[in-house]
Amino acid sequence: MVHGTNEGTATVTSKPRISLDAMGGDKAPEVVIQGAERALEGNPNLELILVGDQDQLNPLLKKTRLLKNVVRIIHTDEAVDPTAKVSQALRSGKNTSMWKAIELVNNGEADAVVSAGNTGALMAMSKLQLRMIEGVTRPAIASFVPTQNGRCCILDLGANLECDEHNLVQFAIMGSAFSRFLQNIDRPTVGLLNVGEEDQKGFDYLRAAAETLRRDDLPVNYVGFVEGSDFSSGTVDVIVTDGFTGNIALKTAEGVAQLVRAFLRRAFAANIFTKIAYLFARPALARVRSMINPNAYNGAVFLGLNGISVKSHGGTNAFGYANAIGVAADMVKNGYLPEVSQAIAKANLILNEEKRDENG
Amino acid sequence: MVHGTNEGTATVTSKPRISLDAMGGDKAPEVVIQGAERALEGNPNLELILVGDQDQLNPLLKKTRLLKNVVRIIHTDEAVDPTAKVSQALRSGKNTSMWKAIELVNNGEADAVVSAGNTGALMAMSKLQLRMIEGVTRPAIASFVPTQNGRCCILDLGANLECDEHNLVQFAIMGSAFSRFLQNIDRPTVGLLNVGEEDQKGFDYLRAAAETLRRDDLPVNYVGFVEGSDFSSGTVDVIVTDGFTGNIALKTAEGVAQLVRAFLRRAFAANIFTKIAYLFARPALARVRSMINPNAYNGAVFLGLNGISVKSHGGTNAFGYANAIGVAADMVKNGYLPEVSQAIAKANLILNEEKRDENG
Repeated sequence: MVHGTNEGTATVTSKPRISLDAMGGDKAPEVVIQGAERALEGNPNLELILVGDQDQLNPLLKKTRLLKNVVRIIHTDEAVDPTAKVSQALRSGKNTSMWKAIELVNNGEADAVVSAGNTGALMAMSKLQLRMIEGVTRPAIASFVPTQNGRCCILDLGANLECDEHNLVQFAIMGSAFSRFLQNIDRPTVGLLNVGEEDQKGFDYLRAAAETLRRDDLPVNYVGFVEGSDFSSGTVDVIVTDGFTGNIALKTAEGVAQLVRAFLRRAFAANIFTKIAYLFARPALARVRSMINPNAYNGAVFLGLNGISVKSHGGTNAFGYANAIGVAADMVKNGYLPEVSQAIAKANLILNEEKRDENG
Repeated sequence: MVHGTNEGTATVTSKPRISLDAMGGDKAPEVVIQGAERALEGNPNLELILVGDQDQLNPLLKKTRLLKNVVRIIHTDEAVDPTAKVSQALRSGKNTSMWKAIELVNNGEADAVVSAGNTGALMAMSKLQLRMIEGVTRPAIASFVPTQNGRCCILDLGANLECDEHNLVQFAIMGSAFSRFLQNIDRPTVGLLNVGEEDQKGFDYLRAAAETLRRDDLPVNYVGFVEGSDFSSGTVDVIVTDGFTGNIALKTAEGVAQLVRAFLRRAFAANIFTKIAYLFARPALARVRSMINPNAYNGAVFLGLNGISVKSHGGTNAFGYANAIGVAADMVKNGYLPEVSQAIAKANLILNEEKRDENG
């Protein structure tokens, strides 16, 4: 069995212990500390561990109300270069705040890790230390986007450029469990991203994945192919795709949301009449802004690893960072890891048995 | 030489002759006639030919002011089923309004065709009749999207699910010429869609296409890899990608724009105060709506064919249909076909010479 040493510690708990890479992110360590404080305000049961340069952390901690009394600091003055390639980051790695923060999960001192640092490095270091859940062939990055009637979980967002049908089936299982726990939906609906809803559309591997997902005995409530517009329409709770397409679709969606915000700003700044109108419209516009605020959806998760590792957007603010901590805490509290491990094991059993039957 | 019989007729002209598939589209023939009337109002020099059921067309034409005096009708009472698979559509095809409208381009009676009918059928029938420009390996669907500082041309939007480096290089050439003529930009900047801007990112075929596009002797102003967010940011004038990714990114973008429109509606309908605010905000909001109005960007073109074939969105209105006619008219007026044929021939010469040199 290939399991991390953290087996048995990352179980269901109401007091999640979360290690934070305090030096990762564009505005680290300030935003990390502010985000941690904010997360504590919302959930006083959190146990937070800051990994980073104590000379920078201590003065910032002094300004906090809650965090300074409960936080533990693990000191290191090294950090992963945000622009480093994965191979570089790994070579210079074991004394960095990122590596050490993940290490705490690996050796059972924390239940989850959050970092706003270099995505590639976080993925690689998480994979190396936490390893994969038994039976998972590829990890996937998952996150939420706003929709007409709530939010939708999308995966993979870039862990794997190319995926085959087996990867996609596993992503569907991992994404279902993620969506169930974070959205409190009993049987989340799952769609496969394609260029049309008709069964004959798309690549062979998409149609093969669809055929498997339609089986009743898999722990997935598969509804069919979905299109790019279903990112926002709320048709399904989970959208499964390869990392290339998912990454581009997510960034396209973020770009359009930003474009509309810019157009709104421009339209209301156009002349004295629109400026006056803005004063009246401000509450409604603020409501819309909050509905498409990327910080509200911050916290992408590496699913499929045998430990919980959450990536915060590098440029997020305290509100966004607190949300990423919230994602990690929810996964720990709801026992995501044991649940998904069982689901994957069950699915592999079913699919392998079928294969054995076919081979005689 | 593989050329359509229309060679020599589809040249630069200030009086574009455009055939319209009057029976194609969700609200055909009404929207086609209203759109044609509207296009004529903006450009009285158009020669329009309606292909469709005269019994349906004539009563509608009577209500028009300009169109009824100048239009020519080619009668047929058959139309392509909007839900038909391509193979079905082709089998039942030669008497349909779509086939006949394309035929007018093929036999030199029209310079371009516009249809809001079945996309797959239009692509297949256009390809069959008009054939490809000599030296083009694959056609591509191109269209525009709004950006922070204007509009951006995206291709391929779904003609080819999978593309290799040679296809992408040709798409860059075809998209450059399209953007130059429709946006009046001297040297449109071109980006290749990828999951990051760094040179080492993405698939092998993307890096190979980038290497070719960086050559100074090709008629492409290539600037590098771009990301999904560049759909809206206005970083480049043309974005090149495969048809699977392009289709999904475009639909994602349209979905998010629709989502924000829905959020705005909901926010201003929330209570009596926001409803009053709406009265003041209406002009600014209308401005934003018009900036992201998909009808303003209606008219996707099959580039690479030896004739101009424009696909209107099936659900568009008269304004949108008139824009699709406008796209066709601009391509004819500016001599897109001779220009792009030369550019492709020149590029093939350069790239083939290089290959010969390499082979000794």
